[in-house]
Amino acid sequence: MKKDFTLGIVGLGLMGGAFARALREKYGIPQEKLFACDIDKNILNTAQEQGLVSKVFDTENAGAMLSACDVVFICLNPSAVICFLEKWSGSFKPGSIVTDIAGTKASIAAAAEKLGSKNAAFDFIPGHPMAGAEKGGFANSHLCNFTDKNYILTPLAFNKPENLEFLKQIIHKMGFNKITEVTPEEHDRKIAFTSQLCHIIASALIDCESDTEITRFGGGSFEDLTRIAMLNAPMWTEIFIENRSMLLERINQFEKSLNELKVLIGGSKAAELEKRLELVKERRTEMGKRG
Amino acid sequence: MKKDFTLGIVGLGLMGGAFARALREKYGIPQEKLFACDIDKNILNTAQEQGLVSKVFDTENAGAMLSACDVVFICLNPSAVICFLEKWSGSFKPGSIVTDIAGTKASIAAAAEKLGSKNAAFDFIPGHPMAGAEKGGFANSHLCNFTDKNYILTPLAFNKPENLEFLKQIIHKMGFNKITEVTPEEHDRKIAFTSQLCHIIASALIDCESDTEITRFGGGSFEDLTRIAMLNAPMWTEIFIENRSMLLERINQFEKSLNELKVLIGGSKAAELEKRLELVKERRTEMGKRG
Repeated sequence: MKKDFTLGIVGLGLMGGAFARALREKYGIPQEKLFACDIDKNILNTAQEQGLVSKVFDTENAGAMLSACDVVFICLNPSAVICFLEKWSGSFKPGSIVTDIAGTKASIAAAAEKLGSKNAAFDFIPGHPMAGAEKGGFANSHLCNFTDKNYILTPLAFNKPENLEFLKQIIHKMGFNKITEVTPEEHDRKIAFTSQLCHIIASALIDCESDTEITRFGGGSFEDLTRIAMLNAPMWTEIFIENRSMLLERINQFEKSLNELKVLIGGSKAAELEKRLELVKERRTEMGKRG
Repeated sequence: MKKDFTLGIVGLGLMGGAFARALREKYGIPQEKLFACDIDKNILNTAQEQGLVSKVFDTENAGAMLSACDVVFICLNPSAVICFLEKWSGSFKPGSIVTDIAGTKASIAAAAEKLGSKNAAFDFIPGHPMAGAEKGGFANSHLCNFTDKNYILTPLAFNKPENLEFLKQIIHKMGFNKITEVTPEEHDRKIAFTSQLCHIIASALIDCESDTEITRFGGGSFEDLTRIAMLNAPMWTEIFIENRSMLLERINQFEKSLNELKVLIGGSKAAELEKRLELVKERRTEMGKRG
């Protein structure tokens, strides 16, 4: 890949905006080499005025951007990524690297296979940056920090090794310090636990307490556990339902553990409970070291 | 209460140590006016060497400290607070203000009533600072920050208003910016939700996943939700079982909400799920404003 490549961002929401900032500020891509397309003209104008991107395109003119870009980041919700790929697959620049940021990967990988990406002119490498913020939209994209965050890539069999390597370099330079490669299925199974289950738990915690003054009794735990309940409801609804078989399995496992702890508490089984909590503490401490 | 009062801390663990630091550094109490007693002589020596406290006492000589102090903070686990009060109730300085920091309050208030505090020479005002840290012990007490944290007091009917006011001044000057007064029962009901349920959920999340490499797939949510799983197992076992009737009610409420969300996901009820999550987001946002 030549050094003076052109990069296009599809969708300047929270993540698309954060990518534009990280590419400019951390990676150091020149403004004239960074393009964006979005349905919102005001956001495109703002991004241009802020010195983030040079050329901007309405969504209906996405093809003009795609044909000019060596690398494309599709920063849309999962189903919109698939729609976009299906609609514009003939418009990407031959030899270009295309990636996405959606929180489910098996369906996107399947769509890419179906589109015959193997013979397509572009190389689609599915990805998932493990970063976000409570508030959505381009206006909050400066709140989304990539430094020392995880990034998951689920490369497809036909991805070119040199393209994968180049994409990893870009990701690393934006601040992500741990890039993990797994299959789309493995991604969806792991993420069902670390991300989706956590969002469901946070939501259930808020769902079961209507007293909005309860935070006067908070000591940090409640605030930390429920911050992510301020979620992008349409996007998470889509992700939960898309990955429901793996998510339901994770919810069931969690419910089993919760119930076992409840039984120990209800039966005043102090010795057993303490032993179980000691194991939990050890395991979480070990996880922190690996993190 | 005269200005040059003497304050004694019973138990120099994580919280006792943090109180000593906050009293010295934030409140500005002179070292010669701050005493401590503990079972660990090394910790007492360290606290003295660090310029935190002047006189130190072995636990068996607690009476000598108590008889010299105008204010006493009992920084022990719930059951140990009750044992301590029962053992040393005759040794407190007449007119002194005594408080504790335990995470359950109804049992401690009942013990205080039983001890006949109404006619006791000292005024016992139960309290609960809403602050802590993942790592316990005096050595980690500098990690426990009180600034802008909540503090709950559960005054008893016989507490003298001027003593309550004086205690609140001390607490406020240590950094706590929201002091809430409720009955011991109300405290236990609210805390069952904001603190105990959260610790149980965090523990169940770790309990149901044995892969310690899972943090490679974390994006912050999992880490935030499970940080408190690194808990002081003996203390939390005691708190969970002590407050089990209220805690079990809270776990049941949470399980009901979780199950309802699970049913919506399993049935692919996108519209209903999205609506429910929007309400959750609104409520949590409102809670954040009240926090």
